[in-house]
Amino acid sequence: MIYKVPVIPGDGIGPEIIAEGRKVLETAADKHGFDIEWIEYPLGADHYLRTGELVSEETLKELGRYRAIYLGAIGDPRVKPGVLEKGILLAMRFYFDQYINLRPVKLLEGVWTPLKDKGPKDIDFVVVRENTEDFYIGQGGRARSGRSHADLEVKRSLYNVKFGLDIDSDSDEIAYQIGMVSREGCTRVIKYAFDLAMERRKHVSSVDKANVLSDIYGFWREIFEDVGKSYPEVTTDFNFVDAITMWFVKNPEWFDVVVAPNMFGDIITDLGAMIQGGLGLAPGANLNPEGTSMFEPIHGSAPKYKGMNKINPIATIWAGAMLLEHLGEKEAAQDVVRAIELSLREGRVRTYDLGGSSTTSEVGDEIARLVRNL
Amino acid sequence: MIYKVPVIPGDGIGPEIIAEGRKVLETAADKHGFDIEWIEYPLGADHYLRTGELVSEETLKELGRYRAIYLGAIGDPRVKPGVLEKGILLAMRFYFDQYINLRPVKLLEGVWTPLKDKGPKDIDFVVVRENTEDFYIGQGGRARSGRSHADLEVKRSLYNVKFGLDIDSDSDEIAYQIGMVSREGCTRVIKYAFDLAMERRKHVSSVDKANVLSDIYGFWREIFEDVGKSYPEVTTDFNFVDAITMWFVKNPEWFDVVVAPNMFGDIITDLGAMIQGGLGLAPGANLNPEGTSMFEPIHGSAPKYKGMNKINPIATIWAGAMLLEHLGEKEAAQDVVRAIELSLREGRVRTYDLGGSSTTSEVGDEIARLVRNL
Ligand SMILES: CC(C)[C@H](C(=O)O)[C@@H](O)C(=O)O
Ligand SMILES: CC(C)[C@H](C(=O)O)[C@@H](O)C(=O)O
Repeated sequence: MIYKVPVIPGDGIGPEIIAEGRKVLETAADKHGFDIEWIEYPLGADHYLRTGELVSEETLKELGRYRAIYLGAIGDPRVKPGVLEKGILLAMRFYFDQYINLRPVKLLEGVWTPLKDKGPKDIDFVVVRENTEDFYIGQGGRARSGRSHADLEVKRSLYNVKFGLDIDSDSDEIAYQIGMVSREGCTRVIKYAFDLAMERRKHVSSVDKANVLSDIYGFWREIFEDVGKSYPEVTTDFNFVDAITMWFVKNPEWFDVVVAPNMFGDIITDLGAMIQGGLGLAPGANLNPEGTSMFEPIHGSAPKYKGMNKINPIATIWAGAMLLEHLGEKEAAQDVVRAIELSLREGRVRTYDLGGSSTTSEVGDEIARLVRNL
Repeated sequence: MIYKVPVIPGDGIGPEIIAEGRKVLETAADKHGFDIEWIEYPLGADHYLRTGELVSEETLKELGRYRAIYLGAIGDPRVKPGVLEKGILLAMRFYFDQYINLRPVKLLEGVWTPLKDKGPKDIDFVVVRENTEDFYIGQGGRARSGRSHADLEVKRSLYNVKFGLDIDSDSDEIAYQIGMVSREGCTRVIKYAFDLAMERRKHVSSVDKANVLSDIYGFWREIFEDVGKSYPEVTTDFNFVDAITMWFVKNPEWFDVVVAPNMFGDIITDLGAMIQGGLGLAPGANLNPEGTSMFEPIHGSAPKYKGMNKINPIATIWAGAMLLEHLGEKEAAQDVVRAIELSLREGRVRTYDLGGSSTTSEVGDEIARLVRNL
């Protein structure tokens, strides 16, 4: 069996961490009797600065022939914030309709968490982040209202308190942003979360801010309640996004599966990464169960560390395990996860973020060795 | 000197905590030779359910005659989430154009934080939250696009990836929400943050998500940079909202003044409250320096605890100290803060959230006693 897997090392430290991911995945493949043929795509800042192209329709079509893409990191200080991230990373999430962004929050044995009195048995949940809608749709703009102050009517008509605020008429330039969710978009990701909970501890927590952004998140909450009716065994709770940041820190043991709209999912998974030991350990899967999925560490391209062989490759290796699992190679995937766990528990080979002084490639070597010997 | 101060006890545990706030503020007034005359407004769920009215224009006009309002909490399970919060709390913030929501994040001596290895010297910053714009403007709706799928064009045109996603045509009901910020609105709150930093450790951190919500937060970031030019002594940094949740937990000592758009400010101040020991200890001031300001704990009405005399009144008492300071009674304000600090350091009288078993009124009594004896 040969799996063809497109790989996008990307920017900054992307190539360094992807090299370790490939090393470990190849070792697991070798051990379990299959092959991986990597098809390298040099997308990212260099390609963009040389050609002016982010990602072409042709490339997207080609990538769309495969079930799984392996991605390092996108983002470079030579390019304005957002251009590469939106033009490559988000463009792929949207183009391939990867509507599930699966982000495990799991503290492994031997890993330091910033939280007092919490251990591996307390921090073990999964965030299912919606990945194609919400405030990520890239719609917005600027306006200048002139003498009539037309745009500021928006502000004046708030909550039906139309009593006329005194807004200075000379400086009424505004910027706006639109978020949108669809019934189908919410339903499919919430269903996924409930299905996942059925295989776990049967609890789903919804995240919203329905008390203020009532239009968009009132709709989300209604759909959550609707979907929940088909899962009588699953218990649920609702969390305002502000409050859930507190519970992640105070009571992470409350959570099993957490489902969140795109932007709130983005915010709470960085917090989740921190409580599980930092971004160096947090993997993510962008899933389209019927199409092309994409596997990446949730951290960025860390340009400061480029070429230094210092960055922790474990998030990327773990994302690689999720890729193997997605391809149906469950045993190989399990070996990779076990090797990660073992290396962290032993703690001899660690990068600086975990208090060690090993290099990126030493960590990759060690995990590959453990995969081989498991 | 007599200060007339409108007081809105509100819902749930609001009346219980406000009673303690009044007790302590009256003690401080007595000691420092001034008087407070409370003017009580019974706004909240009971009033709404009886009369159908949230807050009338007449009441708002009356409240607008005073410099400072003292607020308990708004919100009741008998009313759909958001109705009272938007119709009363947010309506007042907007009506009085209280564009600064000032929320200190300060771990006091003797208080337990969920963070390892962090103490009072590490957790001492202030969040300046914009309070009248952003996604709080209450603009949004639902749409059904019918055969033409017009609304879904929004989704299809994302990031110029117009290659046609396959969105099911039978279920295209959507909900949307609009956020808006104005140049004036951003400028005034960012200026306030820089002015505040000049009196503190001269560092301002901006929060945005300019890499994805580029229209609204690219604008915010530009204005931040503009305003910053007038404060050459103040150092700055930019934080994506997802990342700042990590730094609050990992490196709170990095922060001095943090300025954030409304919604992100809402999220990070709950997290801030948790690292300073919980919502029971987190006060907030909604400021309009030229108009009517409002002082409240940042927590909600905790309906489960209503009438139990269990809730921690310190957030409300601390908000009361901010009210006194705003009225120009600096020494009285300092006495209240010192009494809070002293009571926490001694730790004899504590509510359940701080590991004690004292009642709400015992804590109020103790802090009043300390104010008297300072
Ligand atoms: C880089 C950025 C566009 C991205 C996001 O906001 O989704 C990142 O923060 C993530 O969580 O994958
Ligand atoms: C109750 C709610 C409307 C409010 C907000 O979102 O501003 C609260 O969370 C706060 O932080 O004061």
